[in-house]
Amino acid sequence: MNHSLTLAALLLTVGCATTDPLPSWRDGATKTQIIDFVERVTAEGTDDFVEPGARIATFDNDGTLWAEQPVYFQLLFAIDRVRALSADHPEWMTTQPFKAAIEGDMESVLGAGMEGLMELLMASHANMTSDEFDAIVREWIDTARHPTSQKPYTRMVYQPMLELLDYLRAEDFDVFITSGGGIDFLRVWAEGTYGIPPQNVIGSSIKTKFEWRDGEPVLTRLAEIDFIDDGAGKPIGIHNHIGRRPIASFGNSDGDLEMLQWTAAGDGASLIALVHHTDEVREWAYDRDSHIGRLRFALDEAIEQGWTVIDMKADWETIYPASGKQSETPPAD
Amino acid sequence: MNHSLTLAALLLTVGCATTDPLPSWRDGATKTQIIDFVERVTAEGTDDFVEPGARIATFDNDGTLWAEQPVYFQLLFAIDRVRALSADHPEWMTTQPFKAAIEGDMESVLGAGMEGLMELLMASHANMTSDEFDAIVREWIDTARHPTSQKPYTRMVYQPMLELLDYLRAEDFDVFITSGGGIDFLRVWAEGTYGIPPQNVIGSSIKTKFEWRDGEPVLTRLAEIDFIDDGAGKPIGIHNHIGRRPIASFGNSDGDLEMLQWTAAGDGASLIALVHHTDEVREWAYDRDSHIGRLRFALDEAIEQGWTVIDMKADWETIYPASGKQSETPPAD
Repeated sequence: MNHSLTLAALLLTVGCATTDPLPSWRDGATKTQIIDFVERVTAEGTDDFVEPGARIATFDNDGTLWAEQPVYFQLLFAIDRVRALSADHPEWMTTQPFKAAIEGDMESVLGAGMEGLMELLMASHANMTSDEFDAIVREWIDTARHPTSQKPYTRMVYQPMLELLDYLRAEDFDVFITSGGGIDFLRVWAEGTYGIPPQNVIGSSIKTKFEWRDGEPVLTRLAEIDFIDDGAGKPIGIHNHIGRRPIASFGNSDGDLEMLQWTAAGDGASLIALVHHTDEVREWAYDRDSHIGRLRFALDEAIEQGWTVIDMKADWETIYPASGKQSETPPAD
Repeated sequence: MNHSLTLAALLLTVGCATTDPLPSWRDGATKTQIIDFVERVTAEGTDDFVEPGARIATFDNDGTLWAEQPVYFQLLFAIDRVRALSADHPEWMTTQPFKAAIEGDMESVLGAGMEGLMELLMASHANMTSDEFDAIVREWIDTARHPTSQKPYTRMVYQPMLELLDYLRAEDFDVFITSGGGIDFLRVWAEGTYGIPPQNVIGSSIKTKFEWRDGEPVLTRLAEIDFIDDGAGKPIGIHNHIGRRPIASFGNSDGDLEMLQWTAAGDGASLIALVHHTDEVREWAYDRDSHIGRLRFALDEAIEQGWTVIDMKADWETIYPASGKQSETPPAD
């Protein structure tokens, strides 16, 4: 009798394991809220049912799909790029924030404020064609390593979130990235890493200009901000690119608050979730006072509104994908 | 013998008719060019094969997917809207171009130039929420009638192009609209009319602002141009929204030239096509000197480059969908 029970329990466990859409999520309230929501909006004939075409889910990137410490990875790209270009710019050795970037003095880089960051961004992201920028990002993402983990940045993504993306797509959701980061930076590697194609990436952008070079039409990247996809910009970017209100949104910082509010204000069922960085051992622990990904107002509102708060330490069995499991950008395969 | 041949010919005809993806297109060079291109890029293992995810096709709207005479239909919407609002704006009866719009004096409306058109557009398209604008367009598209045909505007679309959209989607193309018209105007009815969802509509836009009204977040439409998706703007809009170069593009006027050039400059096989308005009986005949949809430089380049020129009169068996065949916006069903 004991043996049959054990066998039954074993079979049940195996059965669950093979059908669990979120194997890296520990059983508990968070996982239940996510699966309950998906089952409700996909159950035909119910009040909560949502047609497949309207199953829009939006995900912030930095701190929600991949890590963002010690600073946003795209800033590390900008600094690496400034270093690579520094031989042609001797004046940078006596100009801030370029000098600090070249010397790896992150404190001074961050101390240069928004204006200084913009100078680094423009020096590294503008005055080239869209194809040239694509090639530069591609090479960087395939070769650069995170300063403390020494992993490729595309392996600093969250395994539980990769499973969530797959789960939602399997349930006919249309999944979008809505990042404060650069749209053209993200598009190079989002498809290989997340399975999210370029047309489903929304992000900040600089202006481009259509012109002719050597008899070929090119898009030249100008040193001028076009759109900042952060804060109140996120619902605007969603409206501009998708033209539909999401029914599920995931963020991790105050820059995601308006997107979450916009999603929550829609008719019908919605899933509003924050990734809370609580794991100082396996990842990082930060929220209200962080210099990156500050989470204060959005956390207060999540608690007040009963949104889903994903506790990385408690809810995630795994943080990063197992080595070799994560796909790279297509040309690197 | 004669009888069996006739029967065989009949069977062959029936066989072809049921499998013809473009039944409203007459057999000839144009139809052959389109089908040959699709068969080439979808044939696995060949040099021309394109992965499904990269099969991007972009379509201009006015004059390419639906008619555009006597003036762009969105301008007729703006004029109808100005009339509906005129009771609250007595000053419009003494101000141009509002007076002309209210009185239906199209010559004076068009004579007011770009500045005058902008005033009409802003008065009819701005200073309301995105949801309010959506409702206004929805009501107009469901009730307004074309001034000469008396048809709903959604039945002034081209049946051969509807078949082409279906054919491309069946072959795993991702189909986008790239219109000089307003993105939010188009999105209301593009899905019901063309099967093109809001996220696949690219167009001109005005700026929006995220704000709170009666405790709900709204996007308020501002009287300020954000982006003009015409001419050199079309490759920029494609890059911003799709992030990939199309392999097939369809236009009908000089405003589409840069999109066609951008598509033609890609690696690999491409299909570049112009709809040429040659049918003065069933539709309209116009090109080089037209006040709407002027086709001069793009026609010259099409001839020079060997692009596909669709001759409406010669190539299309049918122009408009049969009555009742065309779907309306979903709420009107």
